[in-house]
Amino acid sequence: MDEKGKKAVSVKQLLALSESERLNARVSGMVYSVRDMKDFAFIILRLSDGVTQCVFDKTSPLPAEESAITVVGEMREDARAANGFEILIKSLTVLSAPSAETPLAVSKRKLNIALENELPLRPVTLRNEERRGVFKLREGIVRGMRRYFEDNDFTEILTPKIVASGAEGGANIFRLDYFGQKAYLAQSPQFYKQTLIPVYSRVFEIAPAFRAEKHNTARHLNEYISVDFEMGFIDSFYDLIDVETEMLRSTFAYVREHYAAYVKPNMTLPEITEIPRMSFSEIKERVAEKYDRKIRDPYDLEPEEERLIGRYALEELGCDFIFVTHYPAKKRPFYAKDDPENPKFTLSFDLLFKGLEITTGGQRIHDYDEQIAKMRLKGLNPDDFESYLMLHKYGCPPHGGLGIGLERLMLQITGEQNVRAVSMFPRDTTRITP
Amino acid sequence: MDEKGKKAVSVKQLLALSESERLNARVSGMVYSVRDMKDFAFIILRLSDGVTQCVFDKTSPLPAEESAITVVGEMREDARAANGFEILIKSLTVLSAPSAETPLAVSKRKLNIALENELPLRPVTLRNEERRGVFKLREGIVRGMRRYFEDNDFTEILTPKIVASGAEGGANIFRLDYFGQKAYLAQSPQFYKQTLIPVYSRVFEIAPAFRAEKHNTARHLNEYISVDFEMGFIDSFYDLIDVETEMLRSTFAYVREHYAAYVKPNMTLPEITEIPRMSFSEIKERVAEKYDRKIRDPYDLEPEEERLIGRYALEELGCDFIFVTHYPAKKRPFYAKDDPENPKFTLSFDLLFKGLEITTGGQRIHDYDEQIAKMRLKGLNPDDFESYLMLHKYGCPPHGGLGIGLERLMLQITGEQNVRAVSMFPRDTTRITP
Repeated sequence: MDEKGKKAVSVKQLLALSESERLNARVSGMVYSVRDMKDFAFIILRLSDGVTQCVFDKTSPLPAEESAITVVGEMREDARAANGFEILIKSLTVLSAPSAETPLAVSKRKLNIALENELPLRPVTLRNEERRGVFKLREGIVRGMRRYFEDNDFTEILTPKIVASGAEGGANIFRLDYFGQKAYLAQSPQFYKQTLIPVYSRVFEIAPAFRAEKHNTARHLNEYISVDFEMGFIDSFYDLIDVETEMLRSTFAYVREHYAAYVKPNMTLPEITEIPRMSFSEIKERVAEKYDRKIRDPYDLEPEEERLIGRYALEELGCDFIFVTHYPAKKRPFYAKDDPENPKFTLSFDLLFKGLEITTGGQRIHDYDEQIAKMRLKGLNPDDFESYLMLHKYGCPPHGGLGIGLERLMLQITGEQNVRAVSMFPRDTTRITP
Repeated sequence: MDEKGKKAVSVKQLLALSESERLNARVSGMVYSVRDMKDFAFIILRLSDGVTQCVFDKTSPLPAEESAITVVGEMREDARAANGFEILIKSLTVLSAPSAETPLAVSKRKLNIALENELPLRPVTLRNEERRGVFKLREGIVRGMRRYFEDNDFTEILTPKIVASGAEGGANIFRLDYFGQKAYLAQSPQFYKQTLIPVYSRVFEIAPAFRAEKHNTARHLNEYISVDFEMGFIDSFYDLIDVETEMLRSTFAYVREHYAAYVKPNMTLPEITEIPRMSFSEIKERVAEKYDRKIRDPYDLEPEEERLIGRYALEELGCDFIFVTHYPAKKRPFYAKDDPENPKFTLSFDLLFKGLEITTGGQRIHDYDEQIAKMRLKGLNPDDFESYLMLHKYGCPPHGGLGIGLERLMLQITGEQNVRAVSMFPRDTTRITP
């Protein structure tokens, strides 16, 4: 508090003012829109967490939209106004004015612009209430997840993104020149989170991951936020399924409690109780039968098949989510633990949300000899994984984990059609700006 | 809770058990060390947040160190034991055993190994209590910072790390091949955090940053964790200094409250009240005078000079920290706002902690024409910054921000001599593994 009184930048701060402070509230924000009513004007001020209506008697010139202003005024209760009050402006100071009009009106309730045209203009369109709200919701989801991990003995780790080898194999990896050495961008924190299991028993990380996938689809990004956790001392991979279920339930509850303003009626934030689980082979057959569809690839799920599994889960099992378990070993990485009852399959799973894979996880191999053998079987040279294999060599508990694609989760919650819509500044094969 | 009872993986969970549950506590961890006393043995179990002593009557073979085990036993109060209890083992199950002995004993109080030899062995040495404690402390600092930002209306952002141009200029930038396009790894979230100021007023991000600096010193990493914030509607850059001071004070208090076990007697976690501030020119002269040192570079601080400023701050001003303000424009990036009273200098600052720069920050240019002019003066082409300049063109408030190098902060807190010691898996010019 200085001699001029507190300067609020949020609705939250304004609502926390005392009765007497409300007589001369001081607030700074961006001019979202101006409605000139001749003798006075309405100025809608965009604050950090919402908008507020101000009434201005035009004792000084009207500020342009997207000007930064500070006003001093009286907060008056008004049930019709957003947040239950409006501000009668006593003085208005323009801190800065734009040098050009925005290429589209940002204060519309719905921005009517195609995604392809919007993305280059994101520095402007994110000023729109609905748009920025999507990323407040993302913040809420991330906070809710962290709260869950904190409360359940997971240690937060921050692992390197420049790495010497890829965890997921394949060609989908970005190469970079690292002082003359070959280096890569991490596809996932896989090796590190496993390495830290004997250290902390349970770890998590929420950080960028990079995949050089060449296909430009509505569900792929080349850089995304990966929510990873890894747990030691599991009895089976069903422990991971239980933890993910509980984590999502707790996260959605956190969001409903603290971010309700950003959960719009058209969004899906399910009340999770139980999530059904079914094996890869069984759900594949059931879907083929129910929707009269031929099985073309017995080892993988096609996107269309994933959508049908989502439909099946909703129609037959009454749930937006379904765990598909026991994926074929052929399609899982070298660290996936085979099912001892049928080594053609692995103790692994995907989580589908409304027909889209948002999680891949499973139990990992913890025995040294077993891991060496599986590497050889997959055509890999164990010598290339010396650091990683210290985990198995020097002892580690049975463990497993999973990764959640944050943008994919957001995509299904918001009901958007393209994952780019829920990434602030998406990266795809042709886009590295803004 | 299953039929076998809760399985604890942390001291915290054990301490939360009821009196009756303590009679048959079930706990899983790694065998940290074994002391065979002939008729019985002490097994020190490493849990996720500490170690606990178990007494084992040797009814089954002793497990090897670094085995993963589950024990069921009675928790008995014992004032001499760590955490105030020990466990009398009734049954012991080995979940997995290592296939080789660790190359050094991990359970020593102090690992007696040179950093250069330790780093390749980090997957093993992090199992040491003292080592892993350093990164629990880091977790505490990150959590404390986030708590502060959350409580003070900062929105958390997650910005892309693959970018089209560097924010800091210069050659210290990693290039990568991005589907045939040139792309870079972000040196900082600078452009994005500024872009989001008219959107959210205040933002922060804690994420990796990449610098291709060729010098291999004890204070440089090529990948580090950058704690960034940016604030709109500031009156001057002193607002930023006030927020950073308050943020550090509140973070250290949080750590003292919640992470006390990891704050060792040899560490420095100062009680911050005020942090002194002095201009670049003045402190340079004072240090030259007091320590009889010639000023060689009037535009920058040499590492030796930073150390002397730290000494001066402690000796003359009684503080481990000092803000050095008004850096020469020559050495600051194109977005730094010049001091209107003397445009050779900028409205910027560094924060030094025990003689090491841990923060660079300052007020940014918010006016479009001013930014264009400064870019031209610095030899840059404004056309290359079209997305970034939307910020200035379409309106933004006076604003500024700063970045904190998390590992440097940790370096000064822990009193380590090399920043690699406080990065789990450090990246330097020759090191990309483990």
